[in-house]
Amino acid sequence: MSHTGERNFDHFLSLAERLDVPARLREEMAQCGAFHTYPAPGLIIGVYMVEYARNVLQVQPGEKVYAVCETPKCLPDSLQVILHCTCGNNRLRIIRAGRFAFTVNRGSDEAFAQGIRVYVDQEKLKAWPTLLAWFTHDACFDKKTMGDRLFEDILTAGQQILSCERVRIPVHKKEWWSTKICESCGQMVPSTFMTGDVCAACSAEKYYELE
Amino acid sequence: MSHTGERNFDHFLSLAERLDVPARLREEMAQCGAFHTYPAPGLIIGVYMVEYARNVLQVQPGEKVYAVCETPKCLPDSLQVILHCTCGNNRLRIIRAGRFAFTVNRGSDEAFAQGIRVYVDQEKLKAWPTLLAWFTHDACFDKKTMGDRLFEDILTAGQQILSCERVRIPVHKKEWWSTKICESCGQMVPSTFMTGDVCAACSAEKYYELE
Repeated sequence: MSHTGERNFDHFLSLAERLDVPARLREEMAQCGAFHTYPAPGLIIGVYMVEYARNVLQVQPGEKVYAVCETPKCLPDSLQVILHCTCGNNRLRIIRAGRFAFTVNRGSDEAFAQGIRVYVDQEKLKAWPTLLAWFTHDACFDKKTMGDRLFEDILTAGQQILSCERVRIPVHKKEWWSTKICESCGQMVPSTFMTGDVCAACSAEKYYELE
Repeated sequence: MSHTGERNFDHFLSLAERLDVPARLREEMAQCGAFHTYPAPGLIIGVYMVEYARNVLQVQPGEKVYAVCETPKCLPDSLQVILHCTCGNNRLRIIRAGRFAFTVNRGSDEAFAQGIRVYVDQEKLKAWPTLLAWFTHDACFDKKTMGDRLFEDILTAGQQILSCERVRIPVHKKEWWSTKICESCGQMVPSTFMTGDVCAACSAEKYYELE
């Protein structure tokens, strides 16, 4: 991490302590910030959202849960660090809907799992003008001069800007797979990733050129 | 983490020490395993792949780099934990191509960034029969009896199963956005996520039902 990053980080953690954020949450904010490389506002809101979901579902430490995050912005990292729903362990799915919300559920042998959806409630945001201005990307929000005020709003509001609803989420079973060879690149690809004879990296998802 | 998970973890780390895996790599394997909740074979191969990329590109500790991971299976977590290219900080993109490979590049003000692509080389895998059987999901691989042998192959092979190539990757600039309201759910969504008047979570990406 850069020295600037470290200074911002220390400054943020001092502010959280001064505002009486409980030690356990501050520890989780520090862990999330270290992973993300800085204490982004959305990441810190995410810590409160995870806390909310964990309390409602009564998730035990180390318990296996699954999440769908409705935005790729910051929020997935709070789920990954605290609940260990990660991109790589198949317990986190990220959809590019842009809503600052996620669902969390336990595993289930049924076709559907019961879970909870936690979201930033735009009605409740109105009580926190700086936070609302940042959240809506309003031109009146100046991150150079209003950063401290934003974090004060976030840390003072805590869970007060959040709402939740009970949801049913379809359970996806693991599919059996064999190895296929892409006809274009000749590389091995699990059959579950292939829709034709050519892998996605050689067709729709091609993203680099050889030097 | 469950007690079973902890036992597996200790067992894996003992094996790594006995096979003379350098302490720094063992530390990174432990960090990745804690995040992922267990030392998955693909995650450990990923530690070697990140080490390979870091050496070729001479990435300094804390330096900001970007990655595209060509599979969602395990590998993204090695990139996230070690290089801090995370889903939430916009330095990691995951494509569902199914190839066990990633690219890493530094930021660039140009239209393209130079980077490196690291991949598991199927020709080189042939020297490690248990690893090859696991990798190809061959019916002869029995994870109940061959787990130790698999990890011995992975930890003994290290970077010997990997290859790399120099690549050019297009640089995506941050887009300006304003807040839009989805006509279906009424929730706020950044304009960059909206393709029409309805957000993705209310249309193509709808994934839950209210209870």
